[in-house]
Parts: sequence; C-alpha cells; structure tokens
Amino acid sequence: MNAIKDAVHDYIEVDGVARDLLDTTAMQRLRHVKQLSTVRLVYPSANHTRFEHSLGVYHLARQALEHLEITGARAEAVRAAALLHDVGHGPYGHQTERIIERRLGRHHDDIDHLLADGELATVLESHGLDTGTVADLIAGEGKLGQLVSSDLDVDRMDYLVRDAHHTGVPYGTVDPGRLVRVLQFVDGDLALAEGNVATAESLLVARALMNATVYRHHVSRIAGSMLERASEQLLDGTDVGVEEFARMTDAQLLAALREFETTAPVAARLAERRLYKRAVWTELEEVPEWVLGADHEERRELEADLEDALGLEEGDVIIDCPGRPSMPETHSRVVVNGDVRRLHEQSPLVQGLQAAQRAQWRLGVYTPEPHADTVQDAATDLLELTE
Amino acid sequence: MNAIKDAVHDYIEVDGVARDLLDTTAMQRLRHVKQLSTVRLVYPSANHTRFEHSLGVYHLARQALEHLEITGARAEAVRAAALLHDVGHGPYGHQTERIIERRLGRHHDDIDHLLADGELATVLESHGLDTGTVADLIAGEGKLGQLVSSDLDVDRMDYLVRDAHHTGVPYGTVDPGRLVRVLQFVDGDLALAEGNVATAESLLVARALMNATVYRHHVSRIAGSMLERASEQLLDGTDVGVEEFARMTDAQLLAALREFETTAPVAARLAERRLYKRAVWTELEEVPEWVLGADHEERRELEADLEDALGLEEGDVIIDCPGRPSMPETHSRVVVNGDVRRLHEQSPLVQGLQAAQRAQWRLGVYTPEPHADTVQDAATDLLELTE
Amino acid sequence: MNAIKDAVHDYIEVDGVARDLLDTTAMQRLRHVKQLSTVRLVYPSANHTRFEHSLGVYHLARQALEHLEITGARAEAVRAAALLHDVGHGPYGHQTERIIERRLGRHHDDIDHLLADGELATVLESHGLDTGTVADLIAGEGKLGQLVSSDLDVDRMDYLVRDAHHTGVPYGTVDPGRLVRVLQFVDGDLALAEGNVATAESLLVARALMNATVYRHHVSRIAGSMLERASEQLLDGTDVGVEEFARMTDAQLLAALREFETTAPVAARLAERRLYKRAVWTELEEVPEWVLGADHEERRELEADLEDALGLEEGDVIIDCPGRPSMPETHSRVVVNGDVRRLHEQSPLVQGLQAAQRAQWRLGVYTPEPHADTVQDAATDLLELTE
Amino acid sequence: MNAIKDAVHDYIEVDGVARDLLDTTAMQRLRHVKQLSTVRLVYPSANHTRFEHSLGVYHLARQALEHLEITGARAEAVRAAALLHDVGHGPYGHQTERIIERRLGRHHDDIDHLLADGELATVLESHGLDTGTVADLIAGEGKLGQLVSSDLDVDRMDYLVRDAHHTGVPYGTVDPGRLVRVLQFVDGDLALAEGNVATAESLLVARALMNATVYRHHVSRIAGSMLERASEQLLDGTDVGVEEFARMTDAQLLAALREFETTAPVAARLAERRLYKRAVWTELEEVPEWVLGADHEERRELEADLEDALGLEEGDVIIDCPGRPSMPETHSRVVVNGDVRRLHEQSPLVQGLQAAQRAQWRLGVYTPEPHADTVQDAATDLLELTE
Repeated sequence: MNAIKDAVHDYIEVDGVARDLLDTTAMQRLRHVKQLSTVRLVYPSANHTRFEHSLGVYHLARQALEHLEITGARAEAVRAAALLHDVGHGPYGHQTERIIERRLGRHHDDIDHLLADGELATVLESHGLDTGTVADLIAGEGKLGQLVSSDLDVDRMDYLVRDAHHTGVPYGTVDPGRLVRVLQFVDGDLALAEGNVATAESLLVARALMNATVYRHHVSRIAGSMLERASEQLLDGTDVGVEEFARMTDAQLLAALREFETTAPVAARLAERRLYKRAVWTELEEVPEWVLGADHEERRELEADLEDALGLEEGDVIIDCPGRPSMPETHSRVVVNGDVRRLHEQSPLVQGLQAAQRAQWRLGVYTPEPHADTVQDAATDLLELTE
Repeated sequence: MNAIKDAVHDYIEVDGVARDLLDTTAMQRLRHVKQLSTVRLVYPSANHTRFEHSLGVYHLARQALEHLEITGARAEAVRAAALLHDVGHGPYGHQTERIIERRLGRHHDDIDHLLADGELATVLESHGLDTGTVADLIAGEGKLGQLVSSDLDVDRMDYLVRDAHHTGVPYGTVDPGRLVRVLQFVDGDLALAEGNVATAESLLVARALMNATVYRHHVSRIAGSMLERASEQLLDGTDVGVEEFARMTDAQLLAALREFETTAPVAARLAERRLYKRAVWTELEEVPEWVLGADHEERRELEADLEDALGLEEGDVIIDCPGRPSMPETHSRVVVNGDVRRLHEQSPLVQGLQAAQRAQWRLGVYTPEPHADTVQDAATDLLELTE
Repeated sequence: MNAIKDAVHDYIEVDGVARDLLDTTAMQRLRHVKQLSTVRLVYPSANHTRFEHSLGVYHLARQALEHLEITGARAEAVRAAALLHDVGHGPYGHQTERIIERRLGRHHDDIDHLLADGELATVLESHGLDTGTVADLIAGEGKLGQLVSSDLDVDRMDYLVRDAHHTGVPYGTVDPGRLVRVLQFVDGDLALAEGNVATAESLLVARALMNATVYRHHVSRIAGSMLERASEQLLDGTDVGVEEFARMTDAQLLAALREFETTAPVAARLAERRLYKRAVWTELEEVPEWVLGADHEERRELEADLEDALGLEEGDVIIDCPGRPSMPETHSRVVVNGDVRRLHEQSPLVQGLQAAQRAQWRLGVYTPEPHADTVQDAATDLLELTE
Repeated sequence: MNAIKDAVHDYIEVDGVARDLLDTTAMQRLRHVKQLSTVRLVYPSANHTRFEHSLGVYHLARQALEHLEITGARAEAVRAAALLHDVGHGPYGHQTERIIERRLGRHHDDIDHLLADGELATVLESHGLDTGTVADLIAGEGKLGQLVSSDLDVDRMDYLVRDAHHTGVPYGTVDPGRLVRVLQFVDGDLALAEGNVATAESLLVARALMNATVYRHHVSRIAGSMLERASEQLLDGTDVGVEEFARMTDAQLLAALREFETTAPVAARLAERRLYKRAVWTELEEVPEWVLGADHEERRELEADLEDALGLEEGDVIIDCPGRPSMPETHSRVVVNGDVRRLHEQSPLVQGLQAAQRAQWRLGVYTPEPHADTVQDAATDLLELTE
C-alpha cells in the first residue's frame, strides 16, 4: 500500500516519480517549513507544513488529471510539478519571499536553479522527465501549467481547505471533490464547466474570509514584519549568504537570528510571543499616495527617520504597508450558457469582494509597547495620515 | 447526565422547562418533519429533522444567554422560545407555509393558538412562565426576542451549520462558537462586538452559498412546487381541514396525497423521485413586471390557461415564481469604532451578494417530461418572457 | 458530473447499471426506510436512511474492485449487488426481519423474488447482467460474494462509519480508505494483507463499542420491541398481507399501526416517544436455559401468562430476549507472516470482546410505567430469574 | 473575547491564572516541542505541539471541574496544573525522558525545580496559588491530582482525540464531552458514574488502537531510537549540560546534533528521513529474560559488542527494547450497581487488550541499510533470539 494518510484528503497514493521525489533533500526540507509561518501565534493548531500541503496539491493534481483524462508523460510531469511547486520557498514561506526577490531577483516559483542539476534533476530524468518542462509547469506556463499555477490551480484548492482545517475556522468554503470534477479545458484554457458560477464564487469567498480572519490577522502580520526586518539585519550584518538564507528551514532561521547579537532580542520575542504593538493601524483612504508608492528603500528610510527622531534603536519601528488588495481568482474562467466568461464579468459578487478587501486593508506601524504612543504621534505626522 | 448527543454540537444539556417541553406531543412531532423537506432528493444525506434543529437552537440560545449574563426567568423564557420556535411549522416546513398563511392568515412563528392552552401551556406555566411572553419571543418581539428571531438570531446560526453538515457541502461558513461569544446588546439592540465585520459577513456568505447550492437547487424547487400544488388540491378536493393539515407530519401529508385520487400520481412521483422537468428557467430581467406581481390566484389562473390550451390535466403545469431576492442578514448590527452600524452601511460585500442573489434568481415552469417542449413554447408566449 | 454528494464519502460516482438502478421504485423506497430504525429516539441526529447507506456500500465496492483490479461484467455485477443489497429489508429494517423470516421463511438478503422479474430484472438485463448472479452475490455466495456479504464485506465498512457519523458518537473506528486498499484474495478467500491485524481488530472494536452505545441501547430496544409486537398484532388482526407488510416504508407501517384500533395506542406512543419502561433487565448468567431456548411461540405465551395474571391488556408485557451474543468479524482472515489466519486464532483481543459482549447482554421485560413494579415481580418469578 | 480557537475543542476560554501562565517562557517553549516527536515521519500531518495539547488539557479540566462543581482556589490550582502539566518535558517529549530520568533522576511530571522560583512561581503566587500545591497536582498527588494525572485524567482524554485528529486515523475513540460529564469522586477517588463501563473501555480501546497504528509505529520507533542514541552521544561528547539539554526545543536539539561532528550524520538522516532499517523485529516470547532485564548500560555494551564484531562505527547499531507492555487505564474505577469497581475486575475486554499489547510487542535492532543482513545474524546470535 503506497498510500500516505493525510488529515485532509485521507489517503494519498504515491507512485512513479512522486515516490522518488519525496525522498529528496529538497522535499524533506519542506517538513521544516510551516505552511502559515507566524499564523500559529494566533491559531495554536496551525502547525502544518509545506510538506503535507505539497502532498495535497499532488493528490488533487492526480485527481484532476484523471477526470481530464490526461495520461502518460505529460501527466507525470504535472504530478511532479505539483509535488515540487513549493520547493523554491525560503524559510517561513511568504514571509521571506520579498527579501529573496529583492536580493536574488527570483520568485519562489522560479526554480530553474534547483532543477538545473543535482538530486531533483537526477530523479526527474530517471523517470524520463525534462527538468525544463517541469520548471515551466511550476511557473504556470503552457496549457497544463494552469493546473499548477493559475487562478484555478490545485494549489489554492488544497491550501484553503487545509489552512481552515488546521486553524479550526469554518471558512475554507472550497469543495475540492467538486472542483477537480468540473475543471475542463476550453480552447486551451482551464475553465469550470457549465453550472459552476457558485463553485467559482466559493473560491473567492473562501479567499476573502480566510484573508480577514487568518492570513491577514494583525498578530500574524506583526510577527511576520518583525521576522522580515530581522532577516534583513541578519543578511546585512553577518556573512550569511542570500542563497544559504533561502535554503534555511524555519528553525534554522530562528537559530541564526538568535546567534546574531543585533537580532537576538527579536528572535527571543518571536520565540516567546512578546510581540510589538500596533502604534498605527490605518485604512487605505487615509494613507497618502506617496506612502503607498514608496519602495522598500524609501520605507526603510522612513523607519530610520522615526527611530532617530524618537531616539530608538534600529529595528524598533516597523512600517508594514501591504500592496493594494488584489484577488487573482476574479479572473477565473467559467462556462455560462456555452460561452467561456471571466468570473468578474459574470458575478456581481466579485466587485463586492474586491471592495471588501479594500475596506479591510490596513497600514500598520509596529513598535515595542512602551513606545507605542510616541510612535503613533510621530508616524501619523511623518506619513501624513489623515485621521 | 441530562445531555443529548448531537451530531453538530456534541452534547446538549437539557434541564428546566426544556426537559419537560421535549416530552410534549408538539415537540415530538418535529421528529417527523424534515428540516430541508425536498432537498433530500438532491442530497441523500439531508434527512435531519426540525427536532434536532430545535435542540440546536436551544443549545445556542443557552450559550448566548450565558455569555450575555442573562439569567433567571427571562432566560428560561428565551430557552423555551428557542426550543419551541418551530412547533408552528406545517408538514415539509417552508414548503407548506404559504398555503397555511393564505388559508389561516398565520405565519409559522405565530403560535399563540398553540400556546393558549393545552399541553404546552401546562408545561410552561408549571415552570412559572407566561405563555404570551414565550409566544412574543418566538415572534421576535422585544429586546430578548431578537435572540430567537432576527437577523442575528441563533436559529440561523444552527441551521446554516447543520444543513451544511448533513448535505455534506462545505458552505456553512458560520462559526457559532464565535457568534454566541460576540453578541451584545447596545441600546437594547442585538449587535456583534467590535472587530466582527467579517463575522457578520460570514453569515451572509453562508446564506448566499447555501442558497445557490442547497436551498434553491432546482430539483428541490421542482419537488417542492409539486408538493405545494398537490397540497392545495388536497385541501380543495377533500374534507381535510387546514388546521388538521397544518399539524400533519411529512409522512402523514404524503399518505393523504396518496389516498386522494387526484393527487395519488404526484404522491407516487415524489416518493419515487420521478419529478417534473423544467420547461422554463428564466432570469429576473427577462420576466415582465406583471408576472412578478401576480398573486397566488392569478398564477393559478395562468397555470390553468396553459393546461387548457395544451389539453393537459389540472396540476400538469406549475409556475414557480419566487419573491424578489432578499437577505435579511444585511441589516445586522455591528459595532465599528465604537458605533453601531448596519452591516450594509459598512460592508461593500453586501451589495455584491444582493446582486449575486438577483443573478441567481429564476422563474421556473415545470411539467412532466413529455410536455416540456410544448409547455416551454406556450409559457414563454403567455408570460411574455424575453429570450 | 455524475457524482452524488454524500456526507460520509464526499462524492460518489454513479454510472453504468448503478445509475439506472437508482431510479427504480425498489431503490427509491429505501429513502423511506431509516438505517437505524428506533435508535433516533436516543440519538436525535440518527435519521439517515438505507438509501444513502446503499450508495455508500456501492462506493466502497467500487473502490475495492479497483484496488483488486477486478473489471468488466463481474465487477459490474458486484457493484449492482452492493447497491441492491438492502432492497429486501422490510420497514424499520432489522426490527421487522424476524417477523418476515418467520412468516415468509425468507432472510432479507434473499431477494430472488424481487429480482425474478419486474423493474429490477429489466434494468439488470439491459446491462447484460444475470439476475441470478446478482442475487447470489447479495447472498454472499461465491468468491466475489464475500465483498458484498461476509465478515470483511463493504457493508459493515460503510455502516459502522455512517452510523457513528450520524449519531455523533466517536466509536466508528473503521478506516474504509485503508480497508479497501488492503483487501486481497488468497486462495479464493477474502483476507486482509500482511500487517493488518490491528486493521481487522478495529472492525471488531467498532462493532463492540457501537453495540454497547448505539445498536443495543435500551431505549432503542424498548421501542423496537414495541414496534415488533404491534406489527404482529397488525398482521394477525387485519387483512394486511405479509408481502405487503414487507414492502412498506417506515411511515407506512406507522400509519397502518395507527389506523388499527388495537395498535393505535402503541403507534401514538412510538410517535411521541412515550415508551414502555424496563421492568426487568437481567444479565445472561441469571437467565435459565429454558428461557434462552424458548422459541417465538413460547415467548408469546409467557407474555400472555404475565398479562393474564396481572389483568393487563394484550401487548402490555414484552419479553425481549436477544440471541446469544456473536461477532461474525472474529473469523476474518488476515495474512500473518505469509499465512492466512483467522482473526480469533491470531488476536487475543477477540476473546476479550466476545466476553465483553456476553457481559453486556441483557434480557429485558418492558411494560407501561404504572405496571413496572408488578411486572417485575411476576416476571422474575415466572422466568425463574436469579437475583 | 478571551477565547482561543482550537482545531479539536473549538473555543477554549482562557482567564485567571491561565491567561498569565500562557505568556511565560516555559509555556511558550511548548510551541516548539511537538506532541508526537518522530511520528510525523509516518503521518505527515502530525505536527501538533505540546502547547496546543496543554491548552486542550486545561480546557477539559475546566469542564470537569464545572461538572464536579469544584470552584475557588482549589479549582484554579487544578486549572494551572493542567496547563502546566507538560512544561517539564525535554525536547521531543517522551523520546528524551529516559535520558533525563537517568541523568537527573527526575520524571517529566516532577517540576518542583521549575516552580521553585522564577517566572512561573511569580505568576502562580500573584494569583494566590501555592507553587508546591500546583507541583503536587501535576505529580498526581491528592484527590484533585487525579484529574491531572491518573488513569482517568484529562491529559489522556485530550491526547487520544488530538493525536487521532492530527494523524488522520479514526482510532481516537474517546468522547471527552461524555467523560467530563460522568466523572465523579467516590470516597475521594475519581470514578466514572454508573452505566459507563463502555465509556471506560473506550479509553482502553483507543489506547490500544493508537499504540498499534501510531504511537508504536516502527518508523517512529526507529527515528526515536536514533534520536535518543545521538542525544546521549551529544551529552557525553560535548559540554552541553543535561539541564540545558532538558530545556531545549526540538529544533535546538536537532541543531546541536548537527553541529557536533559525531552526531551530524544522524542529524542529517533525521532531517531528511533517511532512517536506519530493522535488522531484527522479534516478538516477546522469542526474547530471553536476560535481554528483557538488561539495564541501559548493559544494552549499550551489547550494541558496542555488535559494532565491534562487525567493524561498524559507534552508533551504527541500536537495540530498541521497550518495557513490558502495560496499560494504566485498566485500573480505572467505574461505578457498577452502586459499587466502585476497577475496570479490569469488571471488563473481560481488559485481559484481551493486555494480551493484544503483548502480541504487538517487538524488540527491534536497527542499523543503516547496508549492514542490515550482517547485523541481523550477529544480533540474533548475541541476543539468543529464538526463531
């Protein structure tokens, strides 16, 4: 019985290339990268990893391919890509991806460098698969790449359900068993079959409710911002290389932060959940354009200005300004009365959800508790926030 | 251990007036009235009853009262009302409520007649409760009546979760454990505490997704329409009285339909799931105002006109024209920045959901399969449907 | 998408002969026969039906056949048999099967008479299946019949899980996903593959815990005994025929009991849960051999003796004496170190469970509450129960 | 709302001393100690931590105290003890407890040293609690200590359910909602109320099935043995102190093993799941008394003998000889016919389960794959295993 027991999908059958890929160092490393990084500080049960998520994505890809009646080497390549789709993640997943992008110019689903040679390439090639093909699928290229990375990919079908299961919230309103059955290709594009507008909407709704209650919970955002800031201090102040950094596990990053004098206090704060507080928590329309448009360097300068003005240490003020809200699932294709339409053309719900996302958006400025009041005043001034 | 095991809420503690109410004929009758009437023809697992739902509502009322720190006789009256809130339902619940309203001028939550005397009154009074007070609570009157019947009542917190559990769909996105904890009274009105816009939205979203996939599924609507039509034939063609009708169980109604010659064929169709088909299934904007505005009598005349024109039997054509879509939860009160706001004032999602409801709305005309094509043509003409 | 949503197994794919069988009157009737008959009087959520259970058994048969790599007409016959395996059940399932056996000499899995001609035969033959073959499979005959009816059949894999799900108890310790994967044929006999002693034990354990908490709960046994006794009065005192009786739904039986003057009071008691009480509840070793060995006629005479002696009405005293406890699953075959062994040869747990079953065994004598004390004394004397 | 969302118990209300204890370093450390240590190498979803388990135990203690109507400072002490009951665990929980016992002579529930002074003492005392009292409760002393540590403690009610939930296996057959309701004190001893023999048996059954499928899975035992052996090498070969070791998190231990040259290869093997293989896997009756009775030193000598004889490195052979199987739950007290009895006196199931445990017992000898055959022969000889 080559089946792995999973808390979400019950049994996951593992064979072919997947079986050998599971044993690679790159895949086993994902056992040590949490799926929801700092969310566990809010939802203590959310300790699931990118390893089990990857297995889940592979499982749904398998099912989708079966229903789409795609077989042979093309299918095997998709299954490999589904299983490998997260091996490019740094420690703490999304929390470090912007650092890696800025310093290496590489997105987490660009894994050419990992597949070029070494263990993964050996395994793929031993199963007659081309590494470039697999890398392209992970990047969402080509017709079949849409199964792995697009607004209807099996990735989101797994994580919405899995993250809901492990946090305990009832908002993972996705029905993977239905989704994999109603996927179809129309003129080379992935779409949901006739009668599935509500199915498409459910993906959007799950995303919106999970954003509000889990993914963008302020406690998780604060911890994540502290982690990101400290990681940059680590890279700037020690000889830890960016490639080395990108291959760390969660625990290895935490250990590195703890050993470096500058970041040791923040590492201890994270380990013991003594987090910064919100000095500022401001809605979108109250934030001036120039703040929203500021790039990473400019934000770091604003933080330094505030720290200097108030006599604080470097790292004591963090400005957390998310990008403008977007929801990729709004462009999903659905067949309606025989025609392929984009969901946002069909569903009046989409606009509502997009507006709800904007209404939930917040700029945060975080600092240790004793400085919260002074930082609030200074930041409101400096960032020209209306009140 | 006075606790009843429930598949949704685990253990439900039953004591005080609830314990004695459970043993009454009126409550035991609810064991024989399905919660989702004809939905089981689409979702075979949806056989749950109004009895277990009533227990669930009582349970959540208990929890809400505890968190609101309401005790004593007022609380006991609310618990009684919660348990009894559905005893006024006729057979097949919502499917017969319009018949009862038209013929008796009584809504299912108007149960003064049931509480005036008899077994329920005896039990209530033996626990020092006033029957009028309980009847008022069930009708949603007064401050505490909001807990039993309002846009934030514990009724919907139970049924959204329970109906999802028993159908198996993942769309009951409600978190009763959170809702009962964040309810509060502000100036006498029930509201959700600060920080719960998403909690309020989740009620709306659950409603919208359950509407689309469960409550308004076309198979269930067809069967329900057949049942309603046959029930009227039964009341018109036999000496079954309306009060007697209103107290039947599901099975008793089905048996009565089977015994009356006119309705026997439809009763057999329902029992064996040989349903009428959709001859017409038309969106809101394609239906002329005069059709939408037609009252019950006028619709019956239209049906008769179609039957006559096509030489069909009485009951062979059913026009199913739901009211304009509405979502009561859009007026829920939520505390935002210290002020009480209505959800639709605060959440841009509300408009989207309302529009989505309108987009899902359909006028149906149903008939036995052989007549589907001819009925389609005739009905499209007669009802002046645009195409 | 020919898949039905099920609360236990998620999506059940329905095609081939199964699709046509579902629409037959015999299958649709199972929507109106509850899986757990009177258990719902203890566990209010347990309203599931033999229809959804039959779908579940069909689903697991499908999966087992796939893993066993059995295809073609043989597999189709097994799937048909799995779906049809319960069409022979009378109203209230097991509660009436002894009546039917006594009066028609037919066990519920003997359905030759149902398959001989009529709708089911027509459907089976239209798919090239032999009705005799399907009937034999349902009776558990032949190698493949073991999948449908044996100590390792898919029937129990479904009902143990489903009954636990719907009652809410956590004792359905069966892992169908594993079981269907480890089934194998060894020398023509169904066995569990190497390494599955605990898997086999889990079936036994689930059975034992479900017996104790659900299947043999005294409230359910009392209601079931009342129903059985009244059914016999119905058959003896009216012109309802046994074949007609055997084809009733639960509600039809209840209606018939209500219409017959003699049984009307008991029908009302059942509908409103005003049950008889236990006058006697005695362990196995305290019951004399001659009572245990008494056949149906003799027990009826003992009941009549008690009724006469105490001046009670016919039907006021019910003696409920279950057969000696047995657990068929103890003979399951498991491969251990390459040899096929019977579970009871391998697992010391089996003896313990059998002894636990004996310890839980009870003889019950039931009567309306006012007579409980006098019946207790008289029955203890008459039945020579030690105390 | 001071309630934490938990994937198992839904909302856990946190107030009083518990709220302050949660913020201590000792409690936060448990976020970084997995509940099931190496089991995650078999069940990838089993990443839950002792932190969430501790919250669950606290929650059930709260409920039990409420049903037992125990309030005030005594109850607060029990709640504190329930929350703190695992703070004495070393990294990887049970996997290192024997090392700590041997070297510090201290069991993990002996936490006097942790409570004597420092942060935990400060918090407890600020809530008027005596540290000695809390330490005694954790050690299971006194009447109320039975709630925290005994054969009916809330600890096992949480972990059996939680471990099942997170592995995905269906064998956590425990019903905590019932258990906390039927606990009672009889003559100062904790017992289950009348009518709960099956409830008591379910604890035993859950333990037995979880042992067989999860807790004693061979893959987990191999990884655990490797970890234990390497930990001893670490303590013997470096200046890491035992107290320091006992306070590590899982990741800190893994990092320490990786940094020490001798243990680095094993650390890499554990991180990448390249485990030793079973050279020997032998049943209880085939192992001579002198092997079963060998103490830790003697076993280490046997390992060294094998390594020397085969020219292997230190640490290449691991003898894993569990203690004789025992099931503490067999002594649980249950009220039967008004008397308190021990479960093993009442339930014939107990003997069966104990025998099943003995039948599942295995001595393992593990080694890197290339040496498996030679080690098998040599170990069979040296340990005088019958075959």
